[in-house]
Amino acid sequence: MHGTGVPLLTPFDGEGALQEDDLRELVAWVEERGVDFIVPCGSNSEAELMSVEERARVVEIVAEEADVPVLAGTGHPGFRETLRQTTLAAEAGADAALVVTPFYYGHDEDTMVEYYRSVANESPLPVYLYSVPAYTNVFLSPESVGELAGHENVAGMKDSSGNLTRLQRERARTEDDDFDLLVGSGSVYAAGLDAGADGGVLALANVAPERASEIYRLHRGGHDGQARRLNASLVELNRAVTSEHGVPGAKAAMRERGAPAGEPRRPHRPASEEVRAEVVELVRAAER
Amino acid sequence: MHGTGVPLLTPFDGEGALQEDDLRELVAWVEERGVDFIVPCGSNSEAELMSVEERARVVEIVAEEADVPVLAGTGHPGFRETLRQTTLAAEAGADAALVVTPFYYGHDEDTMVEYYRSVANESPLPVYLYSVPAYTNVFLSPESVGELAGHENVAGMKDSSGNLTRLQRERARTEDDDFDLLVGSGSVYAAGLDAGADGGVLALANVAPERASEIYRLHRGGHDGQARRLNASLVELNRAVTSEHGVPGAKAAMRERGAPAGEPRRPHRPASEEVRAEVVELVRAAER
Amino acid sequence: MHGTGVPLLTPFDGEGALQEDDLRELVAWVEERGVDFIVPCGSNSEAELMSVEERARVVEIVAEEADVPVLAGTGHPGFRETLRQTTLAAEAGADAALVVTPFYYGHDEDTMVEYYRSVANESPLPVYLYSVPAYTNVFLSPESVGELAGHENVAGMKDSSGNLTRLQRERARTEDDDFDLLVGSGSVYAAGLDAGADGGVLALANVAPERASEIYRLHRGGHDGQARRLNASLVELNRAVTSEHGVPGAKAAMRERGAPAGEPRRPHRPASEEVRAEVVELVRAAER
Amino acid sequence: MHGTGVPLLTPFDGEGALQEDDLRELVAWVEERGVDFIVPCGSNSEAELMSVEERARVVEIVAEEADVPVLAGTGHPGFRETLRQTTLAAEAGADAALVVTPFYYGHDEDTMVEYYRSVANESPLPVYLYSVPAYTNVFLSPESVGELAGHENVAGMKDSSGNLTRLQRERARTEDDDFDLLVGSGSVYAAGLDAGADGGVLALANVAPERASEIYRLHRGGHDGQARRLNASLVELNRAVTSEHGVPGAKAAMRERGAPAGEPRRPHRPASEEVRAEVVELVRAAER
Repeated sequence: MHGTGVPLLTPFDGEGALQEDDLRELVAWVEERGVDFIVPCGSNSEAELMSVEERARVVEIVAEEADVPVLAGTGHPGFRETLRQTTLAAEAGADAALVVTPFYYGHDEDTMVEYYRSVANESPLPVYLYSVPAYTNVFLSPESVGELAGHENVAGMKDSSGNLTRLQRERARTEDDDFDLLVGSGSVYAAGLDAGADGGVLALANVAPERASEIYRLHRGGHDGQARRLNASLVELNRAVTSEHGVPGAKAAMRERGAPAGEPRRPHRPASEEVRAEVVELVRAAER
Repeated sequence: MHGTGVPLLTPFDGEGALQEDDLRELVAWVEERGVDFIVPCGSNSEAELMSVEERARVVEIVAEEADVPVLAGTGHPGFRETLRQTTLAAEAGADAALVVTPFYYGHDEDTMVEYYRSVANESPLPVYLYSVPAYTNVFLSPESVGELAGHENVAGMKDSSGNLTRLQRERARTEDDDFDLLVGSGSVYAAGLDAGADGGVLALANVAPERASEIYRLHRGGHDGQARRLNASLVELNRAVTSEHGVPGAKAAMRERGAPAGEPRRPHRPASEEVRAEVVELVRAAER
Repeated sequence: MHGTGVPLLTPFDGEGALQEDDLRELVAWVEERGVDFIVPCGSNSEAELMSVEERARVVEIVAEEADVPVLAGTGHPGFRETLRQTTLAAEAGADAALVVTPFYYGHDEDTMVEYYRSVANESPLPVYLYSVPAYTNVFLSPESVGELAGHENVAGMKDSSGNLTRLQRERARTEDDDFDLLVGSGSVYAAGLDAGADGGVLALANVAPERASEIYRLHRGGHDGQARRLNASLVELNRAVTSEHGVPGAKAAMRERGAPAGEPRRPHRPASEEVRAEVVELVRAAER
Repeated sequence: MHGTGVPLLTPFDGEGALQEDDLRELVAWVEERGVDFIVPCGSNSEAELMSVEERARVVEIVAEEADVPVLAGTGHPGFRETLRQTTLAAEAGADAALVVTPFYYGHDEDTMVEYYRSVANESPLPVYLYSVPAYTNVFLSPESVGELAGHENVAGMKDSSGNLTRLQRERARTEDDDFDLLVGSGSVYAAGLDAGADGGVLALANVAPERASEIYRLHRGGHDGQARRLNASLVELNRAVTSEHGVPGAKAAMRERGAPAGEPRRPHRPASEEVRAEVVELVRAAER
C-alpha cells in the first residue's frame, strides 16, 4: 500500500445498527476525493466495538464497492481470533491485513515478535503491523519492526505513535526490505513522507480526503514544502477529530461535509452541540 | 457474592484448544479447596483471547459443574458485544455478570457511567463493575462507583487497582447500598476486608485456593491479625503469578500443585524453565 | 523515629518571606497536639522552593523549639548538594536526615543504591530513604530497600507511594534490620501499621495532628479496628490537602484551625475561595 | 537566539569538582566547530546537580570565553530561586535566561502561565520557556505558550518534547510574535526547522557540533532534503547520548572526540566500558 489510506468510519444508525447502504456510499465518497486505498475495520472504524461477523461483513461490502486496494483491520488480543478474522477478511476480498499489536495482556518484545511471526506464517493475506500506543499503551520497538520486516509475508506497518524519531528508526531498519511504512498520525503526514514513509493511514482522510490526498501528491511531485504547509493548516482539524473528540468528533465533521457517516456506537456518544460547532468551524476553514 | 472468588484459569492444550474435561475437573478442584464462588472468563481466564462462543461455552461448563455461585466475565469494549455476551452467560446458567470498564477507546467518566447504566438496564443478570487499570489503563472514579451503586441491577464491584485509598473511598460511597465490594488484588485481600470489602476475586485463589479462602474465614471469625499475617506470607507468590509472570506463571504454579491448568493461549507463551522453578519454590513455601 | 511525624508546613507571608515566629509557634502547636517527631523541609514544607540556606535555617528553628526528635529533609537531585544540606542540618541540630530518591535525571536501581550508600557513608546523621513517586516519578524497588537496610547508617524509610503491596514487600525485606518503616500516605496509615510499619510521616498531621496521633496510639494500644475506622473517616480530608489541592489546600485548612500556617510560596498560589470552603467543611467534620 | 545552540556539558573531575580550565577550552572547542550560541547550565550540563553558586560561576566562565550569545539555564522549582539564579546569570554576563517549567510540585496550566509572567516581569534578562517532559513529567500546552509569547520579555522557547505535532501547534500560536522557537530534540532538528523553528538547542551539538551546525546551515541554504538526510544519519548517535545513556554517554562520546568533557557528577556514574564502546562506534560513524 502506497499513498493515502483512509481508516474508513463505519456508519451506524442511532441504535447502533450497521447502515450498509451508507457504507457503500461512503466508499464512493472517499474514492471520488482521491484516496489511494481503504482501511475498513481500523481503530477509527470502531472495529473494537463490532462483532467478528460484523467486521467480516464490513470488509466484504468495502471490497465489493472499492476500486482501490483494501487493507482490512483484523487484529484481536488473541492469536486465534486474529487468524480467524484475517481468514474471513481474505474470503471477503481484502488485499491485506492490518494487525494491531496484541493488547490487554502485556507481552514482552520477544513474545510480540513471535506472535507476529506466527500470524504472518499462517495468514492468507500479507500482514501489516499496526502500532497505536494511544489506544493500546503498547510500544513495539523499531528493533522488532526491523526483525519482522524480513519475513516474506510481513508487508509493512502503520505507525500511529506520531513520533518522528521512532518513524526514522523504523525506516532505517526496513529500507532494504519490501516494507511499506505508513504514517498513522495526520499531523505529521508530510514530515513522515519526508522521512521516507510510503504513505499514510489517516483518520483525517475521512474528514478531508481531498486535502490528505493532496499532501501525498504534492510530496510525490517534489513539492514537499507545499505539502508541509498544507499539512500544517490541518493540524487543529486533525486533532479535533482524533485525540480531542475521537470518532464522535470525526462523524460530526463528516456529516457537516455531507458524507453519510452516521452515529457512533456505544459506549461512544454523539458529539455534543458544542463539539459539533467547534468541528464544523475547523472543517470550513479546511475547505477554504 | 461474598467471600473468596476465583477468576478460574481456562485449560488449553499445547495448540490452544479448550480442554473441557480439565475445566470440569478444575471447578471441582477449587471448590474442594474452599472457594465461595467462581468467576469464569475473567482476565486471568484469558477471556480476551477467546471467542464470544468459547466464552459462553466456558460459562456453561462451569455453571453445570459448580455448586457455588457463578459470576461470569462478560465485558467487551463495545456495548452490543457486552450485552450479547451477558445474555449468553445468563442462558448458560451464570448468576451474575462481571463487566470490565470499556477499554481501547478512551471515555470520560460521564460516558462510562452512562455505559454501565445502559448495560444494567438491559442485562438479564445482576451486574458487577470491574476495574483493572493494569490491563485497561482505565480508572473508574469512586464518585462514579457511588453513583452506579444506587442502580437496582448493579450488585457490586471488583476493584483490581490494589489501591487501598481507592477501596476506602468506594466503600464510603456504597455502604448504604446493597453493593458487594470485592478486592481484586491478592496482596491486599486482608487489608481490603479490614476496610469493609465483602470478599475478593483473586488470581491467587487459582494457585492457593485453601490459603486465599482461609484469609476470608479467619477475618470473618474475628482473627484479622492472623488473616493479615497469612496474607503477608503470600505476597511474593501472588506477585509471581500476576504482575511478574502473569497467566503463564499461574498455570505453571497450578500444574505443580496437580491441578489440570493446561497451557496458556497465544500470544502468551508457556513459562520458561527459570520462571517455572521460581514459581514452584514459592508454591512449596506457601504449602508449608 | 517511631509514631506520628509531621512534615511541617513552612509559614511564608504573602510575599513569600519566611515567618520565623510563626514557624516557632507552629512547632509548639503540633507538639501540643501529640505528634511524636517533626520533619522540617519535607515535600509538604515546600523545601524544593527554598534555598539551601533557608532550609538550614528552618531546621535550626525547628530544632531549637522542638522537644521531640527532628528528622530533616535534606535531599537534592545531586550528591554534593545533598551532602552539604545534610551537614548543615546536623549543625542545625537535626537528629536524622530524610533523603529523597534522586530525581530529575533518571537513574537505574544500581545507581540509586550506590547513591544512597555514598550518602550514608559520608552523612553525619542517620539516613532515612524517602520515596515519593507522585512528585518524583521515581520508584525505588523493595529489593533495593532491603539491600540498603543493612547499611549501619541507614535508619529507615518514608514510603509515600500509598501502595500497601509495596509496603509489605519492604517490611518483609527489612524486618531483621534496625529499620524504621514509615508510612507517607495519610489514607493508609492504620493499614500500614497493621502491615508492620513503625509510624508515619503524614501531611495530614499538619491539619489534624490530634487525629493522626490518635491513629497511632489506638493501634499501639491494640485497638487496630478503631484505628482503621478513625483513619477511614479522614480519607477525604487527607485527599483534599494532598493529591487534590496540595500545600495551598493544607495551608487553608490549618489557618481555619487557628494554626499560623501562612501562605504558600510561588509558583503555588493561595487556595481559591471555593477550595477553602471545601477544605473548611472537611476540617470541621474531622473535628467532631 | 537563532541557529544551533549547545547545552554545554560541564567538565568535572573524578571527585565531581568543576574543572574551570576544561570548561574554557570546551567553549572554544564547540565554537570552532560552528555552533551559533551556547547554553550553559541546561539539563545536559548537569545544572540540577550543581549549587546556585556553581551555576553562576559556570555562566560567568562561559560568558567570558564565548564570542557567540549565551543563553543561561536558570530555572528552579521555586520562583525565588529562579529569580535569584536569573539575576546572577545577568551579572555573570548571560544574554538571556532559559527557564524550565516548574517541576516537583504539580501545577495547573494557569499557575504555570502566572509563574512565567511573574518571572518575565522581574527578570533582568529576556526569558526563554523550556519544556522537557522526559525530565520533569510536565507538559506546557501550546495554548499557554501562545499566551506567553505576547509578553514583551518572553523571547522564545526550547521544546524538548520531540513531538512534532506539539511544535507545529506552538509555531502556529507564536508566528506573529517575536518568538524564537527552538527544537530541543536532536533527532527531529531538521523536521523542526521544516516546521518553522528558528534553531535548536541540542545535546547532540556537544558530541557532533559540526554535524548539528551543518543541519542548520543546509536548511537555511534551501537544502532541506540534505539537512534531513544528514539528521537521519545521526539519530542513533543522538539517542545513545540522550535517552539511552544520558550525560555519562555524552561525556564518553566527547572524550573520544578529544574534547575536555570530564566525568559526570554523582548520582551519575561514568559510562561502563560497554556503553563507551557503543558510543565510540557511533561517533566514528558520524565522523565519516
